[in-house]
Amino acid sequence: MKRETFRYRGDMDLDGFLREMERVGALGAGRLGRAARILEKMWSSDDVTVLLTVAGPAVAGGLGELFERLIREGLVDAVITSGANVVHDALDALGGIHVCLGERNVDGYGRVHDTHIPTEAFEKFEHFMREVLSDLSGRVSCRELLWEMGKRLESGFLRAAADEGVPIYSPGILDSMVGLHVWIHSQDHDFHLDLVDDMHHLADLVFEAEELGAIILGGSVPKHFAMGAAMLRGGLDYAVQITMDRPETGSLSGAPLEEGKSWEKVREDAEVATIVGDYLIIFPLLASGVMQRLGIV
Amino acid sequence: MKRETFRYRGDMDLDGFLREMERVGALGAGRLGRAARILEKMWSSDDVTVLLTVAGPAVAGGLGELFERLIREGLVDAVITSGANVVHDALDALGGIHVCLGERNVDGYGRVHDTHIPTEAFEKFEHFMREVLSDLSGRVSCRELLWEMGKRLESGFLRAAADEGVPIYSPGILDSMVGLHVWIHSQDHDFHLDLVDDMHHLADLVFEAEELGAIILGGSVPKHFAMGAAMLRGGLDYAVQITMDRPETGSLSGAPLEEGKSWEKVREDAEVATIVGDYLIIFPLLASGVMQRLGIV
Amino acid sequence: MKRETFRYRGDMDLDGFLREMERVGALGAGRLGRAARILEKMWSSDDVTVLLTVAGPAVAGGLGELFERLIREGLVDAVITSGANVVHDALDALGGIHVCLGERNVDGYGRVHDTHIPTEAFEKFEHFMREVLSDLSGRVSCRELLWEMGKRLESGFLRAAADEGVPIYSPGILDSMVGLHVWIHSQDHDFHLDLVDDMHHLADLVFEAEELGAIILGGSVPKHFAMGAAMLRGGLDYAVQITMDRPETGSLSGAPLEEGKSWEKVREDAEVATIVGDYLIIFPLLASGVMQRLGIV
Amino acid sequence: MKRETFRYRGDMDLDGFLREMERVGALGAGRLGRAARILEKMWSSDDVTVLLTVAGPAVAGGLGELFERLIREGLVDAVITSGANVVHDALDALGGIHVCLGERNVDGYGRVHDTHIPTEAFEKFEHFMREVLSDLSGRVSCRELLWEMGKRLESGFLRAAADEGVPIYSPGILDSMVGLHVWIHSQDHDFHLDLVDDMHHLADLVFEAEELGAIILGGSVPKHFAMGAAMLRGGLDYAVQITMDRPETGSLSGAPLEEGKSWEKVREDAEVATIVGDYLIIFPLLASGVMQRLGIV
Ligand SMILES: NC(=O)c1ccc[n+]([C@@H]2O[C@H](COP(=O)([O-])OP(=O)(O)OC[C@H]3O[C@@H](n4cnc5c(N)ncnc54)[C@H](O)[C@@H]3O)[C@@H](O)[C@H]2O)c1
Ligand SMILES: NC(=O)c1ccc[n+]([C@@H]2O[C@H](COP(=O)([O-])OP(=O)(O)OC[C@H]3O[C@@H](n4cnc5c(N)ncnc54)[C@H](O)[C@@H]3O)[C@@H](O)[C@H]2O)c1
Repeated sequence: MKRETFRYRGDMDLDGFLREMERVGALGAGRLGRAARILEKMWSSDDVTVLLTVAGPAVAGGLGELFERLIREGLVDAVITSGANVVHDALDALGGIHVCLGERNVDGYGRVHDTHIPTEAFEKFEHFMREVLSDLSGRVSCRELLWEMGKRLESGFLRAAADEGVPIYSPGILDSMVGLHVWIHSQDHDFHLDLVDDMHHLADLVFEAEELGAIILGGSVPKHFAMGAAMLRGGLDYAVQITMDRPETGSLSGAPLEEGKSWEKVREDAEVATIVGDYLIIFPLLASGVMQRLGIV
Repeated sequence: MKRETFRYRGDMDLDGFLREMERVGALGAGRLGRAARILEKMWSSDDVTVLLTVAGPAVAGGLGELFERLIREGLVDAVITSGANVVHDALDALGGIHVCLGERNVDGYGRVHDTHIPTEAFEKFEHFMREVLSDLSGRVSCRELLWEMGKRLESGFLRAAADEGVPIYSPGILDSMVGLHVWIHSQDHDFHLDLVDDMHHLADLVFEAEELGAIILGGSVPKHFAMGAAMLRGGLDYAVQITMDRPETGSLSGAPLEEGKSWEKVREDAEVATIVGDYLIIFPLLASGVMQRLGIV
Repeated sequence: MKRETFRYRGDMDLDGFLREMERVGALGAGRLGRAARILEKMWSSDDVTVLLTVAGPAVAGGLGELFERLIREGLVDAVITSGANVVHDALDALGGIHVCLGERNVDGYGRVHDTHIPTEAFEKFEHFMREVLSDLSGRVSCRELLWEMGKRLESGFLRAAADEGVPIYSPGILDSMVGLHVWIHSQDHDFHLDLVDDMHHLADLVFEAEELGAIILGGSVPKHFAMGAAMLRGGLDYAVQITMDRPETGSLSGAPLEEGKSWEKVREDAEVATIVGDYLIIFPLLASGVMQRLGIV
Repeated sequence: MKRETFRYRGDMDLDGFLREMERVGALGAGRLGRAARILEKMWSSDDVTVLLTVAGPAVAGGLGELFERLIREGLVDAVITSGANVVHDALDALGGIHVCLGERNVDGYGRVHDTHIPTEAFEKFEHFMREVLSDLSGRVSCRELLWEMGKRLESGFLRAAADEGVPIYSPGILDSMVGLHVWIHSQDHDFHLDLVDDMHHLADLVFEAEELGAIILGGSVPKHFAMGAAMLRGGLDYAVQITMDRPETGSLSGAPLEEGKSWEKVREDAEVATIVGDYLIIFPLLASGVMQRLGIV
């Protein structure tokens, strides 16, 4: 394939930009262009069950409303994410509290690089979690807990997931403030967070899928939870991942999708693309461009 | 502090190298030298409870026996790791099966960059897990499950942990082959993996600690599980982390320990050092050098 | 500043995307949004002399035509780049020969990751260089040599620079195929490539600048050549850099622009932004969005 | 090859560590172990001409004395480096002035991440350069200039190179303080820095080499200058590179040595190893370990 050169046009929208990247075809541009084409396939077919996996500071970095939109548009069939994103989404809904105060610690705030959350927001969160948990008892799966949280929030992707019946799995959730409150609550209540039940649920989703696709933001446990489930049916058919990790360290977050074929986590003939970059920039660009391509307004 | 220059000596051992790095004091050398000094403090005092957190391919990359040694020497009081390291440790013990076949997929092997595991090893592992699980019932914490596994293995860090009564926590374990077998087994047996119970256990460990230190390899869920627990007592007193991640993306794995102070996950006056690099090289160097310093043979 | 969340709109163009990133304000989004605002200032004022510095595979990666456009629009007043980009631009103009054959060596091609150049193209290039050099004698600066090359090419940024009288400096050019041919030619001709003369020229440009801005793609020698010149007038007033390098190694390519203030390479009150990412994606996005903002069609 | 596990020994020296890494064989350990074996070959044979290429903050980071040692031991036959390393080496020799004041700008100091140089040191340097230049006239190659500098310094790698007649090439030197003083001096003196002459010299060195090896620290112009020269004889026979750059961006600094084969910059049957990491840590470890192996005291 000949490598073309990028041409600016004054009326270029995001889709036009992605098409131009595909036309260029080389290096980063080519990877982004191919990722857009794969995402288009996943999103334009009714046969593809799409998993969105999210590690890293997606919600702190401003992507919560985009995830909400994707859920409401039916573009993702399940979300697998870290505890932090769940917590940050709830914090946002409980009072819109992320601020950007620069790369330094500021009294009264917890910090994520240049972004800060007032520590008092966590008191509201504690109160909220107590209410949520007081209405639950017995064995409760993570997705049920997250739906319960979503139902009581006025915005955010947890709310959208609850409204739309889209499961959110968070297999590593215990490392977060949700985990903390679950732990405290479990001590003197008949409440058992049943994370294994979610595997059952995800397995069903995966078995029933005509085809399976994954959008992988940042790797880590969410990526591997999705890939492990994909193994049950011989692997993913489509996958797009955005990561800053290197392959050479051997970390899963940096592993090329090609490697997944050796584990039957990715099918031999799957269409896959890895983009090296900060997903807080690349993902809104990619997702918005492909939504434009599909005529979503 | 004046920056010195590195001086080669023909009789330099690993401790000598770390001391020389400390003497140099600048950039990477300085960070490594300071990390060694902090690790020395953690390891030479009886008052410091030391958590080892491990994400990434530590065991695939050859560190299993070093972890075993650290446990047996009493240098770590708890390990927090991913499911993959637990699985790889068991695989090693069940038949020493990692091979290095280059950066390409090879039929009959699952691949971790340039390192490969025969897929048939997973049959042995399945058999092993079935035996382990058949002896357990009711609610079982992750650390209990891992001790049960360890007891039946002839080598590896799981075995050492079982022998020495050192807890291993694996809050994200469900994304791994252990998770898979737990899930299958749970379907028709009275078996509940109780990951929340481990939080209770870790909380006690942390509360009882005179001082708290962490050795953080690669970040991710294990890092945050440790830091979350550290919050319960106002933060870590000592921490050394080795990571390839960048702070700028906002990922926890790349977050400087300084940032942890804003969350009271690290004490204001804590002694901390971050080394940018591949921990498969840096950690054996650092750990071995400090063990030499302490006269361990 | 409150962190907002990203909102998709079906009619979003590239400028709209950059504005949305600025609105979000956190982490990667914030850095990109601020960079757009700074670039807008550089480009909308007649008082700012703008240097474009380019290390890495910009032309192989498809950006040659964009650089051409920026030069023709008067948006850059000088380009500082590596020898490779100069060579690749000429190769493109001599026959449009970059192809993308995947991440593997292919007989008869030189490779840049997934992009390939037929080795025979270098014969054309040799012929071309011989012609260029045969018309030059005595002491010739790098920018004069590059203009001579540009005049004989039908497209590309060298041609645009020659047409518009925009200087291109390439202080490290000797490591490239241009260097090779210069060396061969110098052996038996009265021809001296006078790289020092370019410093004189750039110094004049910088002294005459009302305000000085830099667009820094990838760091390395081009970045430092620009920053060194900026020192002569107390530093840059504006700068935007896009890099994948880390600050922690101490490499100039990864150094934050803040560090440049300690050298008076950047003014204390300069407006600067660093974006972590692949400039082959980020720069066409940023440049195109800001051109849209300025109404360029 | 079976992957082994790392075994600590109380009496391990640096060579022992490298051997243990080679024994492990997987991922980072394997790459380091293989690199040691290749370096051993380069250094133990009289037939191999060894080029050391250095970009990034090697001298600021404390490696100047190690380079000096390598030159004096006859372990490197030529050095190719950036202007910054040349300047920093001279600054060190003129008064040992690097200090480490933390990651912040400090009045009166220029900063390289956490390392600082008093700005007044540059006055001494200016004085020194004036003296050096006043003794030179006509066309002077870079290596001659650097030898002249070396002769007047009491320590450092420039001095060692002058003493031993080892050429130092610095093809991008004009971006540095040496470049600045050369430029100022050239304005009113009959002095021409002839960087092309060094290519001639390096070409001879390369043509005469029985076998050719390269130690590549950090990539950039020095790496490519060496590889370009290697092309003249069909490529390098041995190479070890240490870099933090990614291959995916297409930058030369991150390019695997395998890619160099497509350009005949590396021979098809060359022995090569790339280590991902901070060379300020990895290189002193690797070089010292291999020197121990060779019995150098
Ligand atoms: N990051 C946070 O804001 C945060 C805050 C509190 C707790 N935590 C907890 O820490 C644990 C692990 O941290 P994590 O979720 O940040 O992921 P992580 O640190 O495990 O990241 C995994 C990988 O994703 C990649 N990545 C992360 N952010 C990226 C980005 N913006 N662009 C491209 N690649 C990116 C990185 O290369 C990283 O190696 C989680 O379980 C979470 O609950 C995270
Ligand atoms: N870095 C400095 O201290 C400094 C100071 C003043 C001027 N400069 C000038 O800037 C120009 C370019 O900068 P540079 O020489 O820093 O190189 P560079 O920024 O061009 O680095 C090239 C590559 O080397 C790799 N690298 C750098 N340091 C590394 C390390 N410690 N470990 C592993 N990989 C590493 C990086 O990944 C980088 O991409 C040079 O010409 C130099 O004269 C540099």
